[in-house]
Amino acid sequence: MELSTLQFELVHNLLSLTVAAMFAAGLFFWGSRDHVDHRFRPALLVSAIVVFIAGYHYLRIWQSWGGAYMAQDGKFVPSGVGFNDAYRYADWLLTVPLLLVELIAVLSLAKSEARGLLKKLVVAAVLMIALGYPGEISDVAGTKWLWWVLSMVPFVYILVTLFVKLGPVIAKESVEVRGLISLARNVLLVTWLFYPISYLFPIFGLGGAQGETLLQVGYTIADITAKAGFGLVIYNIARAKSEVSLKAA
Amino acid sequence: MELSTLQFELVHNLLSLTVAAMFAAGLFFWGSRDHVDHRFRPALLVSAIVVFIAGYHYLRIWQSWGGAYMAQDGKFVPSGVGFNDAYRYADWLLTVPLLLVELIAVLSLAKSEARGLLKKLVVAAVLMIALGYPGEISDVAGTKWLWWVLSMVPFVYILVTLFVKLGPVIAKESVEVRGLISLARNVLLVTWLFYPISYLFPIFGLGGAQGETLLQVGYTIADITAKAGFGLVIYNIARAKSEVSLKAA
Repeated sequence: MELSTLQFELVHNLLSLTVAAMFAAGLFFWGSRDHVDHRFRPALLVSAIVVFIAGYHYLRIWQSWGGAYMAQDGKFVPSGVGFNDAYRYADWLLTVPLLLVELIAVLSLAKSEARGLLKKLVVAAVLMIALGYPGEISDVAGTKWLWWVLSMVPFVYILVTLFVKLGPVIAKESVEVRGLISLARNVLLVTWLFYPISYLFPIFGLGGAQGETLLQVGYTIADITAKAGFGLVIYNIARAKSEVSLKAA
Repeated sequence: MELSTLQFELVHNLLSLTVAAMFAAGLFFWGSRDHVDHRFRPALLVSAIVVFIAGYHYLRIWQSWGGAYMAQDGKFVPSGVGFNDAYRYADWLLTVPLLLVELIAVLSLAKSEARGLLKKLVVAAVLMIALGYPGEISDVAGTKWLWWVLSMVPFVYILVTLFVKLGPVIAKESVEVRGLISLARNVLLVTWLFYPISYLFPIFGLGGAQGETLLQVGYTIADITAKAGFGLVIYNIARAKSEVSLKAA
C-alpha cells in the first residue's frame, strides 16, 4: 500500500508527539502524588504507570511505522518490513485493566468491595482485549464478526458494572466529585467505543491508504484521551476529594 | 541545499547541547519542588515537564538533522531523507500551553479565576500553533501571510491577557515578586516574538544554507530561553513567594 508524503508524515509525527505526551503525562501523575491525600496516591501512581507503558509502546509503534515505509518518487512505499500493529494489542492488554484499577482506586470503596470489583473488572478487560485479537488479524469477515461479538461480551459487562453497579457508591460523593466521576465514565465509554467500531472498518471496505491513515490517527487520539485525558480526570477527582477531606479534618 | 561543514556542525552540536540543557533544567525543576512552599510545587512540576518534552524533541531534531545531510567533498549535501521540522511544531503544541500553565500556577489566584483564565489561554495557545503550521509548510507567500495573520490573533489575545488583565493580580505582590513577574512576561514576549518573525524569513528571501543555519540557531536559542530560562524565572518567583509566606507564618 502506497502512502502520500502527507499521510506518512502525519501519522509519523503524531506518533512521535504521542510518545512525548504520554511520558509528560506520566511525569505529571508521578510528581503529583505529593499534592493529593495519601489515600489517592495509589490511583495517581497507577495513572502514571499506564501512560509510561503507553509511551514505551508509542516509541515502538513510531519506530515500526518509520521502518515500514520508504520514500520513493515523492511517495512512501512499503519497505518490505511490515508495520507491527500488535504493539497496540500488547499495550491494551497491560493498560486497559490498569485504567479500571485507576478508577476504582480513586473511589473510596470499602477494601473488600474494591477487591471483589477489581478482580471481575480486570478479568473482563483482559478477556475483552485477548478475544479481539484473533479477529483483528483475520481477513475473513465471518471470523472477524465472531471474535468481535465474543469480545463485546466482557465490554458490555464492564460498562454495566461501571454505570449501574457503581451508582450507589457515587451517590455518596460531593456534587463536584460526582460530576468528575461521570466525566471519567463517559471518557471511558466514548474512547473505548472507538476500538470496536474501528475494528470493523475493513469489513465495511474502509481500507487503503486513506483508511489506514484515519485508523492510525483515530487510535492515537483515542489512546491519548483514554489514557492521559482519563488520568487527568482521575487526578482532578483525587484533588477534589483531598480538599474535601482537608476541610473535614 | 548544500551546507558548509561549519554550518552543519554548528547546528548539529547546538542541537545536542540543547538536549543536555533541557534535560538538565528538567532535573533542576523536578528536584527543586521540595525547596519551595507546597502551593508552588505544581508550577515547578509543570516547568520540569515542559523542558523534558523539549529535551525529547531536541533529541529527535538532532537525529533528524544528522540523518538529513551527509559529508561529501568537504561539504554536507542532502542525504535524500528530509530534515523534519515538524518536531518543532509537535513540541510547541505541547509546551506552549504548558508555559502559560506554569505562569498562572505560580501566581496566587483564586481557584475559579485561575481555571477560567487557563482555559482561555490554553485554547488560544493551541490555536496559535495550529494556525501557524499550514503557512509554515506552504511555499506561497499569500498563503504564508494568511495563516500568519490568523495565528497572530490568538497571540495578541494572550499578550493582552497577560499584560493587561493580570495587572491587578500582580499589583498585590511584593516589589521583588512584581519585578520577577514582569521579567517572566517580558521573556515570554521577546522569545515568542522570534517565532512569527522568523516564520517570515523565506518571504523576505532569507533562505539558502545561511538562512537555514541562522533559523535553526535562532529557534534553538529562543527555545532554551523561552523554556529553561522562563522556567528559571518561575523558580525564582516560587522561591521569593515561599520566603514571604515563611516570614508571614
